[in-house]
Amino acid sequence: MEKRIVSIVMGSDSDLPVMRQAADILGQFGVGYEIDIVSAHRTPERLFDFASKAHLRGVQVIIAGAGGAAHLPGMVAAISPLPVIGVPIKSSNSIDGWDSVLSILQMPGGVPVATVALNGAKNAGILAAQMLSVADSSLRERIISYKAQLRTEVEEKSRKIAGNQ
Amino acid sequence: MEKRIVSIVMGSDSDLPVMRQAADILGQFGVGYEIDIVSAHRTPERLFDFASKAHLRGVQVIIAGAGGAAHLPGMVAAISPLPVIGVPIKSSNSIDGWDSVLSILQMPGGVPVATVALNGAKNAGILAAQMLSVADSSLRERIISYKAQLRTEVEEKSRKIAGNQ
Amino acid sequence: MEKRIVSIVMGSDSDLPVMRQAADILGQFGVGYEIDIVSAHRTPERLFDFASKAHLRGVQVIIAGAGGAAHLPGMVAAISPLPVIGVPIKSSNSIDGWDSVLSILQMPGGVPVATVALNGAKNAGILAAQMLSVADSSLRERIISYKAQLRTEVEEKSRKIAGNQ
Amino acid sequence: MEKRIVSIVMGSDSDLPVMRQAADILGQFGVGYEIDIVSAHRTPERLFDFASKAHLRGVQVIIAGAGGAAHLPGMVAAISPLPVIGVPIKSSNSIDGWDSVLSILQMPGGVPVATVALNGAKNAGILAAQMLSVADSSLRERIISYKAQLRTEVEEKSRKIAGNQ
Amino acid sequence: MEKRIVSIVMGSDSDLPVMRQAADILGQFGVGYEIDIVSAHRTPERLFDFASKAHLRGVQVIIAGAGGAAHLPGMVAAISPLPVIGVPIKSSNSIDGWDSVLSILQMPGGVPVATVALNGAKNAGILAAQMLSVADSSLRERIISYKAQLRTEVEEKSRKIAGNQ
Amino acid sequence: MEKRIVSIVMGSDSDLPVMRQAADILGQFGVGYEIDIVSAHRTPERLFDFASKAHLRGVQVIIAGAGGAAHLPGMVAAISPLPVIGVPIKSSNSIDGWDSVLSILQMPGGVPVATVALNGAKNAGILAAQMLSVADSSLRERIISYKAQLRTEVEEKSRKIAGNQ
Amino acid sequence: MEKRIVSIVMGSDSDLPVMRQAADILGQFGVGYEIDIVSAHRTPERLFDFASKAHLRGVQVIIAGAGGAAHLPGMVAAISPLPVIGVPIKSSNSIDGWDSVLSILQMPGGVPVATVALNGAKNAGILAAQMLSVADSSLRERIISYKAQLRTEVEEKSRKIAGNQ
Amino acid sequence: MEKRIVSIVMGSDSDLPVMRQAADILGQFGVGYEIDIVSAHRTPERLFDFASKAHLRGVQVIIAGAGGAAHLPGMVAAISPLPVIGVPIKSSNSIDGWDSVLSILQMPGGVPVATVALNGAKNAGILAAQMLSVADSSLRERIISYKAQLRTEVEEKSRKIAGNQ
Repeated sequence: MEKRIVSIVMGSDSDLPVMRQAADILGQFGVGYEIDIVSAHRTPERLFDFASKAHLRGVQVIIAGAGGAAHLPGMVAAISPLPVIGVPIKSSNSIDGWDSVLSILQMPGGVPVATVALNGAKNAGILAAQMLSVADSSLRERIISYKAQLRTEVEEKSRKIAGNQ
Repeated sequence: MEKRIVSIVMGSDSDLPVMRQAADILGQFGVGYEIDIVSAHRTPERLFDFASKAHLRGVQVIIAGAGGAAHLPGMVAAISPLPVIGVPIKSSNSIDGWDSVLSILQMPGGVPVATVALNGAKNAGILAAQMLSVADSSLRERIISYKAQLRTEVEEKSRKIAGNQ
Repeated sequence: MEKRIVSIVMGSDSDLPVMRQAADILGQFGVGYEIDIVSAHRTPERLFDFASKAHLRGVQVIIAGAGGAAHLPGMVAAISPLPVIGVPIKSSNSIDGWDSVLSILQMPGGVPVATVALNGAKNAGILAAQMLSVADSSLRERIISYKAQLRTEVEEKSRKIAGNQ
Repeated sequence: MEKRIVSIVMGSDSDLPVMRQAADILGQFGVGYEIDIVSAHRTPERLFDFASKAHLRGVQVIIAGAGGAAHLPGMVAAISPLPVIGVPIKSSNSIDGWDSVLSILQMPGGVPVATVALNGAKNAGILAAQMLSVADSSLRERIISYKAQLRTEVEEKSRKIAGNQ
Repeated sequence: MEKRIVSIVMGSDSDLPVMRQAADILGQFGVGYEIDIVSAHRTPERLFDFASKAHLRGVQVIIAGAGGAAHLPGMVAAISPLPVIGVPIKSSNSIDGWDSVLSILQMPGGVPVATVALNGAKNAGILAAQMLSVADSSLRERIISYKAQLRTEVEEKSRKIAGNQ
Repeated sequence: MEKRIVSIVMGSDSDLPVMRQAADILGQFGVGYEIDIVSAHRTPERLFDFASKAHLRGVQVIIAGAGGAAHLPGMVAAISPLPVIGVPIKSSNSIDGWDSVLSILQMPGGVPVATVALNGAKNAGILAAQMLSVADSSLRERIISYKAQLRTEVEEKSRKIAGNQ
Repeated sequence: MEKRIVSIVMGSDSDLPVMRQAADILGQFGVGYEIDIVSAHRTPERLFDFASKAHLRGVQVIIAGAGGAAHLPGMVAAISPLPVIGVPIKSSNSIDGWDSVLSILQMPGGVPVATVALNGAKNAGILAAQMLSVADSSLRERIISYKAQLRTEVEEKSRKIAGNQ
Repeated sequence: MEKRIVSIVMGSDSDLPVMRQAADILGQFGVGYEIDIVSAHRTPERLFDFASKAHLRGVQVIIAGAGGAAHLPGMVAAISPLPVIGVPIKSSNSIDGWDSVLSILQMPGGVPVATVALNGAKNAGILAAQMLSVADSSLRERIISYKAQLRTEVEEKSRKIAGNQ
């Protein structure tokens, strides 16, 4: 089995439909991952345990998603030396997603979180692959191909519109 | 020496001018307190240690202040069974204080933080005293007197304005 | 009958579905409560009467919920010496809940309201129990158990996800 | 002495430099006024007393200014049958004035506050005069003259710019 | 037929369901009104004509509602000497109503608009009645009765909740 | 004298330091302009007169700047058939410029205003030149040169930084 | 066939229902247009190619629509000397449209984008026609007629409401 | 000379005081970097050239900072396969930094930008080092040491405060 070098964690199982998109794109890139629930607020010891040991288990990048007062990405970044990607999630009772965006993005000097767009778990997966491609030229090639494919899709849609004019 | 039953913690020493106001008002009410720096992001073990032991040391209420992506109040509330009062602080590079307010206020179900106004450390101190007055009728009396004094100050200012008309 | 030591009030009966959650969690903790409608804007005398007498009737903590320009929590806090927990409610015609959040949170120095998240009535109930636990070690134990139960629920969900990988 | 038919109240003496502008313009219109400090949060009985009796004393319009979680205008409107004009004030520690604006503007159905711009006390005075002009044709004439004078001032500035081209 | 002393205008017929509420409450208070569409942007001459002549026709108060970049209330206030009440309307493609609120509320010194809550046409009607009561003691009495009725409705709801406890 | 084909108007002489930048860049492009004060709120007849006649005087593009509840650009666009460029201005007592931006940008269907950035009068001037270049190939060439000059300035700054490394 | 002098581009085919409205109104005005998909983020070369050649093909005005972090209008404006009209689109996962509005509107000095309201593609079409009318008096006449027609529609609705009173 | 594997680019030399902090921390970590000005809006060809060739020159991570409608980070990410870190900068005339934050953060699916806090260039440097540590265990160790040093600094400040109590 491929090594799980990206760890995807989220604060609640209600975040799964969004966070699953990070797993899917990593799968497409052939990058091994694990996925789990770690709540900063309801399982703080678990958070501590997870974040302090992830790099010792061979994990290279962590993707953490959470909604509302979203402390999971920042707390994982506080504890782990690994690069941490934060996914703000627009949960119910969120104030339009602003709470989640700001509590992930606005980290103090010394403790970065690589924040992606609201509900942007797919981009979190791509970003993790880009980080890993620093040491993996074959993965770099797959990223280049992926970008080419995005281009092709747009060009096809453009042709359809042109055909309708 | 009076027992330190309120613990005032903050994420950075730059928060001290604001957080000192909580200490001052507690001093006025004759409530014992301690004051310390505990950074959720730079000293996560210390946060964990502090929050898991505070109630065992006799602390009854925790006041936690932080700016930006302010995780200290929420993480203390995640770990400690004590009531936690959160003070959002308008730090430099804050986005007008919104980041701090939302990342303290918008806690998920199960883990409350009693949030006060932006830079509202004085009110955090009063609120701590009100919580303690649940079991301390003499403190309740001092709170009632404090409210009377607020009233008197306004009435004096009113008389001055009336005199100028 | 158990003593009603927490008083839950709200500005309108349309707030009841949210505010009922404060009552439910207090019931779980075995804390006696009362629940009523007191509108700051439509029944100001009633507000005044309620807030000035609550502590004389043995109430120890007040939870007040309101939407829009939400004045109930702040006005109760102005009149009563008791700790007041404010629940901002996202009512219809609210501007995304911002009005309710800001008009409860941003109280002036001297008159705190312990504000919880938008629609966070459940957390208001937990916070009230935490305040009361200052003088009730058995209640403190129930809060510790509650936090353990939150942890267990997350761990079970984690196991399910692990089983699906 | 002219009858004081407009009552200008504010939550704090720090609001006076702004609220004085309401008095000044009323003076220009020859409308009698009184000015006082009535804090909803620090002198709730005084608020109640003021608001319930103002119309009995011959006051016809109330102007109320406050900052932060600004409850004074709304609570006066809750108690008094008179038209109430609210002036949001951008106080220190305000969140850019949004708190004051929203807690005055977003009143529930049944209890209006005529809200003017942030720090717009001058406009509050003009609005009060316009309300009174409903029953005072001479005051109506003075308002029409005032508008003509605004026009003249702009036209003079326009001529200066034209002269410089 | 009763005299039409309140003029209710709106920028578009899509505003009618909201603005109708101003008419309804004026009807309840026995205040004569007219209702019409005057678009600042699509019928500027009509706006000019309406606003410059309303006070000559015996209109005493104008209520103007509009959504988006809502210029109708402010332009009417620029032209007419009458008190103008502005109703921000949350139209489709509005940015959550902020555009309408700010473009009505934030009028420059000299030209007030009495702004009510988002979609608050009912309160606009009440406010118009309050303005007219400055010269109509019988209308003042009806307003006092209306406030009493609001109180009674809350008290009845309170009794129902009490019965269910 | 060159023909004044761009008309620059503003709501107040306090807007002049910002709006002057539109004039300066038009001067650089050799485009004739006029500059004047036309207040929508204080001189509505003047606004009407200006906007209804500008195209008859040979004006081809209008630039209108205003702060707060900024109605000038939208009202000019309502009356004139010419393209209207709106410049939101961050005036004192503005709510961080949001009021001005939203009341210029969010025009209803049928009446566009070409809005530029907050205080973006320079860009308004460039945009006016671009519009005129539709019928003036020499002006088109000057715009192309201007863009080349922007590029050169950046390249020079880049060389300086490179020299310092 | 009429010459395609307005080019309508958008970042994604999901923007088509909104952007089609620009095409429709241009059609009404008898202005020739083309419509295509050009993604700044997925087809950057295509963007570069399109923007650098449009004016050489006879295009006179570009309308560019995009959602979220909307870079298409600004990047086209960076490359092309033509006037560029930007249409912010409220896409799914947008933060209420603010992202799109601000990333199109707030262009730096030197590179304007003529921004219209959120989803305001119809107004973008009208604005393009107004720009072209600078050199086309017959088009100017059609714009004047269009404005007259807007007026007529409002007047008809007004008559209907009057009939119902 | 050490290889320049991180490329720091910014839209304007006014961004240099902020962006210099990314260089400084990379220097501390012993990571080679280059620093340059590349304006998306004023030098689009240069942007294209830079972004399409960076990975061919051995650059492994790009840090891009920009203010206002900040398109540089997103456009670099559109063109380059490398991981791109975006630094929102609070420039003059920015709307409180919101424009810069949202136009960097809210990238569409397929094209991520790793966004850090407003003015958070220091964190961008740390994040770049963390990304590179994926393939450099010695750099990983330096990151671990850096985190230990952050901890030590807080502990020293804590001791000072304790000494003052």
